[in-house]
Amino acid sequence: MSEPLRILVLHGPNLNLLGTREPEVYGHTTLAEIDQELAELAKARGAQIQALQSNHEGVLIDRIQEARGEIHGILINPGGLTHTSVSLRDALVGVELPIVEVHLSNVQAREAFRHHSYVAGVAVGTVAGFGARSYRLGLEALLDHLSD
Amino acid sequence: MSEPLRILVLHGPNLNLLGTREPEVYGHTTLAEIDQELAELAKARGAQIQALQSNHEGVLIDRIQEARGEIHGILINPGGLTHTSVSLRDALVGVELPIVEVHLSNVQAREAFRHHSYVAGVAVGTVAGFGARSYRLGLEALLDHLSD
Amino acid sequence: MSEPLRILVLHGPNLNLLGTREPEVYGHTTLAEIDQELAELAKARGAQIQALQSNHEGVLIDRIQEARGEIHGILINPGGLTHTSVSLRDALVGVELPIVEVHLSNVQAREAFRHHSYVAGVAVGTVAGFGARSYRLGLEALLDHLSD
Amino acid sequence: MSEPLRILVLHGPNLNLLGTREPEVYGHTTLAEIDQELAELAKARGAQIQALQSNHEGVLIDRIQEARGEIHGILINPGGLTHTSVSLRDALVGVELPIVEVHLSNVQAREAFRHHSYVAGVAVGTVAGFGARSYRLGLEALLDHLSD
Amino acid sequence: MSEPLRILVLHGPNLNLLGTREPEVYGHTTLAEIDQELAELAKARGAQIQALQSNHEGVLIDRIQEARGEIHGILINPGGLTHTSVSLRDALVGVELPIVEVHLSNVQAREAFRHHSYVAGVAVGTVAGFGARSYRLGLEALLDHLSD
Amino acid sequence: MSEPLRILVLHGPNLNLLGTREPEVYGHTTLAEIDQELAELAKARGAQIQALQSNHEGVLIDRIQEARGEIHGILINPGGLTHTSVSLRDALVGVELPIVEVHLSNVQAREAFRHHSYVAGVAVGTVAGFGARSYRLGLEALLDHLSD
Amino acid sequence: MSEPLRILVLHGPNLNLLGTREPEVYGHTTLAEIDQELAELAKARGAQIQALQSNHEGVLIDRIQEARGEIHGILINPGGLTHTSVSLRDALVGVELPIVEVHLSNVQAREAFRHHSYVAGVAVGTVAGFGARSYRLGLEALLDHLSD
Amino acid sequence: MSEPLRILVLHGPNLNLLGTREPEVYGHTTLAEIDQELAELAKARGAQIQALQSNHEGVLIDRIQEARGEIHGILINPGGLTHTSVSLRDALVGVELPIVEVHLSNVQAREAFRHHSYVAGVAVGTVAGFGARSYRLGLEALLDHLSD
Amino acid sequence: MSEPLRILVLHGPNLNLLGTREPEVYGHTTLAEIDQELAELAKARGAQIQALQSNHEGVLIDRIQEARGEIHGILINPGGLTHTSVSLRDALVGVELPIVEVHLSNVQAREAFRHHSYVAGVAVGTVAGFGARSYRLGLEALLDHLSD
Amino acid sequence: MSEPLRILVLHGPNLNLLGTREPEVYGHTTLAEIDQELAELAKARGAQIQALQSNHEGVLIDRIQEARGEIHGILINPGGLTHTSVSLRDALVGVELPIVEVHLSNVQAREAFRHHSYVAGVAVGTVAGFGARSYRLGLEALLDHLSD
Amino acid sequence: MSEPLRILVLHGPNLNLLGTREPEVYGHTTLAEIDQELAELAKARGAQIQALQSNHEGVLIDRIQEARGEIHGILINPGGLTHTSVSLRDALVGVELPIVEVHLSNVQAREAFRHHSYVAGVAVGTVAGFGARSYRLGLEALLDHLSD
Amino acid sequence: MSEPLRILVLHGPNLNLLGTREPEVYGHTTLAEIDQELAELAKARGAQIQALQSNHEGVLIDRIQEARGEIHGILINPGGLTHTSVSLRDALVGVELPIVEVHLSNVQAREAFRHHSYVAGVAVGTVAGFGARSYRLGLEALLDHLSD
Repeated sequence: MSEPLRILVLHGPNLNLLGTREPEVYGHTTLAEIDQELAELAKARGAQIQALQSNHEGVLIDRIQEARGEIHGILINPGGLTHTSVSLRDALVGVELPIVEVHLSNVQAREAFRHHSYVAGVAVGTVAGFGARSYRLGLEALLDHLSD
Repeated sequence: MSEPLRILVLHGPNLNLLGTREPEVYGHTTLAEIDQELAELAKARGAQIQALQSNHEGVLIDRIQEARGEIHGILINPGGLTHTSVSLRDALVGVELPIVEVHLSNVQAREAFRHHSYVAGVAVGTVAGFGARSYRLGLEALLDHLSD
Repeated sequence: MSEPLRILVLHGPNLNLLGTREPEVYGHTTLAEIDQELAELAKARGAQIQALQSNHEGVLIDRIQEARGEIHGILINPGGLTHTSVSLRDALVGVELPIVEVHLSNVQAREAFRHHSYVAGVAVGTVAGFGARSYRLGLEALLDHLSD
Repeated sequence: MSEPLRILVLHGPNLNLLGTREPEVYGHTTLAEIDQELAELAKARGAQIQALQSNHEGVLIDRIQEARGEIHGILINPGGLTHTSVSLRDALVGVELPIVEVHLSNVQAREAFRHHSYVAGVAVGTVAGFGARSYRLGLEALLDHLSD
Repeated sequence: MSEPLRILVLHGPNLNLLGTREPEVYGHTTLAEIDQELAELAKARGAQIQALQSNHEGVLIDRIQEARGEIHGILINPGGLTHTSVSLRDALVGVELPIVEVHLSNVQAREAFRHHSYVAGVAVGTVAGFGARSYRLGLEALLDHLSD
Repeated sequence: MSEPLRILVLHGPNLNLLGTREPEVYGHTTLAEIDQELAELAKARGAQIQALQSNHEGVLIDRIQEARGEIHGILINPGGLTHTSVSLRDALVGVELPIVEVHLSNVQAREAFRHHSYVAGVAVGTVAGFGARSYRLGLEALLDHLSD
Repeated sequence: MSEPLRILVLHGPNLNLLGTREPEVYGHTTLAEIDQELAELAKARGAQIQALQSNHEGVLIDRIQEARGEIHGILINPGGLTHTSVSLRDALVGVELPIVEVHLSNVQAREAFRHHSYVAGVAVGTVAGFGARSYRLGLEALLDHLSD
Repeated sequence: MSEPLRILVLHGPNLNLLGTREPEVYGHTTLAEIDQELAELAKARGAQIQALQSNHEGVLIDRIQEARGEIHGILINPGGLTHTSVSLRDALVGVELPIVEVHLSNVQAREAFRHHSYVAGVAVGTVAGFGARSYRLGLEALLDHLSD
Repeated sequence: MSEPLRILVLHGPNLNLLGTREPEVYGHTTLAEIDQELAELAKARGAQIQALQSNHEGVLIDRIQEARGEIHGILINPGGLTHTSVSLRDALVGVELPIVEVHLSNVQAREAFRHHSYVAGVAVGTVAGFGARSYRLGLEALLDHLSD
Repeated sequence: MSEPLRILVLHGPNLNLLGTREPEVYGHTTLAEIDQELAELAKARGAQIQALQSNHEGVLIDRIQEARGEIHGILINPGGLTHTSVSLRDALVGVELPIVEVHLSNVQAREAFRHHSYVAGVAVGTVAGFGARSYRLGLEALLDHLSD
Repeated sequence: MSEPLRILVLHGPNLNLLGTREPEVYGHTTLAEIDQELAELAKARGAQIQALQSNHEGVLIDRIQEARGEIHGILINPGGLTHTSVSLRDALVGVELPIVEVHLSNVQAREAFRHHSYVAGVAVGTVAGFGARSYRLGLEALLDHLSD
Repeated sequence: MSEPLRILVLHGPNLNLLGTREPEVYGHTTLAEIDQELAELAKARGAQIQALQSNHEGVLIDRIQEARGEIHGILINPGGLTHTSVSLRDALVGVELPIVEVHLSNVQAREAFRHHSYVAGVAVGTVAGFGARSYRLGLEALLDHLSD
């Protein structure tokens, strides 16, 4: 289709602090810089991104629901909701779009309560552990997937 | 009492998509149609309903709290919050009203993480698995319970 | 079909004591009264019920097996067998009819060993917690389901 | 009360084999001898026993239900049903009589699946591990309990 | 011994439906045909079978108990009781005969609650997954075992 | 430092009902009275409090994030979120301030699902079980901690 | 043997409070009265008892060890140590004497942490739930066992 | 009552090392200093304390038992016994006095085996994580509780 | 097809010791004898076997992979790998052939760590407990399965 | 450093079947094509790859050990060993190089036994679910990581 | 240091029975002989031992605490306390000396409740399974460790 | 016997790296040096060792099997296979020789997945935590054991 692919980029709770919180762990890149980098990467591949960060589960679910018919794929870092939100999972299932899950840190190598993801079961795939780069790799994977 | 019974009908996250999302699973009835049907059923029994859907746990809790002194019983489909929200449970306990829990699908027959309900422990009873009809049956049960 | 729907109503162990045992918990309605009420409700909707109570798992299974080709749906309160009988579940699967599971009490709010149901996984839906009314609501749900 | 106390003695599955099966484990006393001994012990204390053994869960439940208004206490060795029957437990609760649970062997010292008893939670007390003597001690305990 | 070996063949709950229930899963062979085939196989090896199917746990236990002194080995498909009946296990232990356990389906590859067998711990061996053939293989194994 | 210590006091879901809900459990003190008492206690020690109650997880996280550079310590009663919110925990970690966790009731003595706290792992300490006094003791502990 | 049987009666932690602590639960009989009753019962059967209560695990173990060659059997109510002391179990194993375990209350019907007994695995049998009578029944069982 | 409140302060195993062991974790305050501080705090509020430290579970239990009729409340840091001693819990229940549990460190944030407390279930409340200050806060809470 | 069926017989680690190791448990038949017997049984039914034993998981996986297009079915006794090797399972899945799993001993009746099989989930069926005969029965079952 | 980065690419058991096995799941790309693609991608970034596939855990460990001083980073798809091999993990730790873990499928969305990875705990990050693309993304992530 | 190394040798509950209890399991060497042997081994290496056995947890903890500044290392066989005593562990941590844990039997090969050791987590190492020799090997290991 | 005792020394995966990998954890002694030291210790006691290290489970099992009739005892450090290899355990059982298990680190004090050993259940005893010395102590223990 000649129309550009539209990708929804969702950042869950606390990701707005990126670049300012615990930089020795998460690096110095801010969320705005990540969104900017994703926008450029998308553009280079003839796609567009729409980005949203929220600390509110409900705001994220509202946005996912609005994606139907408007968006072609979702790139999501659910933050702490990864491990606790069945509602977020249900929203992602309901929107019937390809989902790619990304994490800054390698969640499988952290506390036991971070080993389970409610999102993984409904996602195409996961990229975790590469800091801000996880987003870029995830976007590439999602665009590739949509090109199939 | 000659004053009509007032029933609060609460729909949790993602239930606004009813009738449009996965119709082969959930049927074609929309939430508005359900609310309309419940209103008529209530009216026929001399009761009234007030309905609210939200994807925000906090909005649901706020509404539950306001029900004290104003509402006689709550009919709730907590959606994904069923399995994850202690706060919702605490709100329902705090309002000290009869609660009936309904589910569109038969949650005990789905994924293991849907087998536990935080709401069940504080509800009069549960109706699950009958699609949009679960609401109607649940409302009947609640009105009967209130007539005792 | 002009022929009336035939519904098998099964009551598991100890339900024959209904109305006499712990009335403060289970109410004063007897099983005979419930069956009478279900018969009338069925008749009003052009259906018939056949009811059986037994304390013997084997008797219940025998009856379920005989239902093939003769019965259109089963309304069952498996009592204590709910939580322990794989054989009952296998019988219900084998008869290939719609099943509705009912419970007098809200089993999810009682002892942990009552939280799992072998029947739920093979039933259309569940009604629990409304005393004798659970049966009536379950029958309505089953008849509605059969009308689809 | 001048009328003699009537005690129902129930033996669960496989206890009819007593004295013939694995005598090195269970001793050479037969069930008839145990019942005889219990009858004499009861008589000496101005009581009567009615004994029943069955390999059928349903038969045991039927008998328990009939005990209401006719029997003053139940002495039961539930055999393998101890660990698996919620229905038996429900029957014992429903009859609202004092229950004493006995076992020939020391069940807590055997396979893990014998460590849990559904009956214990609704019994006055338990005697286990003393072979045929467990019954006699259990009967004494039950009669003493009834004399309080 | 010149006298023929006598084998008790036991079929647990729901196996009477064989050949009629879910033929795409269990095949079209009926239980009568299986018993006939086993009788012929036994005869060819100078043995006899006595077959019983019951949906009643108690009936199966009664029959096992009567086998002492009369029967040389037991071939049993316990059906759903496999996973739930300690009493059946106790009966099989009590009769002190070689037991072979058979299953139509490969139970280890089905639902988690079918992975544990109370019978396996007291059996010589198990044959599972080969439909009606599981019986024939099990009988061969039992006769071989008795010939040692 | 001559500038007064600024303490953020956070009350999670349902704590706005304090003093009105289940007074026999939680006492008659309202949240406004608690905040007033804490303000006075703070003032007496040369500190200030800023208090916020919300039923919305997101609102609490937003407020925690704003505390950086503005607040010296956080006193939090997370209510039901204590047991379910990884996002709240992540926010508290991100703000890199001393946290004191308080509970009105003795959560370790209540339902099993209240025994685990996601907040405890990132808090200096916990005060639980003393009703409204838990807050006052928690504030004292926090101010002492900050004085070290 | 013409020499009288010598029985060691051991009472674990807190049993010295018997008759004074929670009499509605444990009755009004004191430990001295129980020991007196046991002494008389023993005497009537040509035996002797030596009784010791201690709140100190070590004192109980010391006493058990001294029993070798001096004592013929041990009647023990381990109190709270039942569920926690491997050392007590090891002492009981080491002394190589018949052990009977008694409990005032029906421990299997109380909190989950009271369902496991380290002593049961090394005891002849258990009597639980009959208050002070548990001791008397346990002593009878032990003397009978020693007479075999 | 004009008579001063008498508070028993109990320190479990290893707390005698306070101030000398791992000062970087537990601070430099010694147990004697803590007792002195508590005595002064008590005196200022018209109360008295009696303090005891022991590494012996039995000594602690003995002391708790003697508190009946003599003491008005117990402040206890059970040390390692927190997680292992049912006997200590039983003693605290038996004495029927208000209990406050204190811990130097935030036990919920340490090894998993420190997350469960046998004492919490029978205490009014808990203070944990504030080093020597936990005692002072706990004493305040206990005195307040006794003043109600 | 007129071409003979080719069956791959795989023996996992330690099965080369058969007949020499613990003969009282595993009998005196050697692996060579078993392979010979299987070859004759196969020949009698117009089939051929290719047998391989290895203590190396990798060697077994290599051989399974080579079976594609060359072999019609696999008879495997995975030995200790049954319980530990996901890679072996993946190889068996990948080769897309019917698999029959055999065990000399009745694994479900041995240590708990032998109760789970990674192979069972991808096999047609299982024969266990009949010593060397398990292979012969398994081969018969496999050939029958292939004849369908 | 002007010398090119050398990356070891390791493919675990069964990955040699890629492109031929279950193409509807894993796609049609062969392992040789993947290695070729990775070589080109590496070359474009001034790096080199050395690739090895083996079904033998030991061969993989040998190769990892040889990587010290010769290789700058490891890209590994451990296949089924992901979930079972502590030895592979130990080898990866011992070589003290950055590790990136890749999987063709989204392992968190498959069987429960695939949810745990022994490699994740020692890896920089993980890419899973994108078929052959997972490798390419993983190599990019590894090269980026090495460039930091 | 020219001053001899002083080693505290601690024997937990029931070890005083060594050589007399179950000699077929534990051998005929008495504890006095072990202490004597250890003293000679120590002397030969220029060290001294101080030995203590107690059945009282508190006595062992008291002795451990006194070791500070006086002792260079501790050799301990905690007996049954290994698996149950957090207080003992805390004492060993508090004394800040190298600890070597020894066991007569191979505890990992016994009952499941002996598989966990509270001491292991704070010990240099463990020697188990060699009877009285475990002590000698443990002492050698401790002296070697202290010589580093 | 005048012929020297022959001891097989087996080193599992990754132990070839000893002395080069993480020397701060495992020390600087190489495996060759350990084997040399063991050879000398053996020689001094009139014994001989044969040593083998392999990263291949299968190679280790092959070597164990060849030990029958040639070797008198096995000293094994199974490395990561300790926790995962049932096949290795089976090989050790099959060879019917005394086994001593050694570990460089104190495995019980490391990650939870290292707490279980498949080898412990079939070994005489274990030495863990003393680095290269664990081997020497283990060899002494094995030679002593063989001298009995």
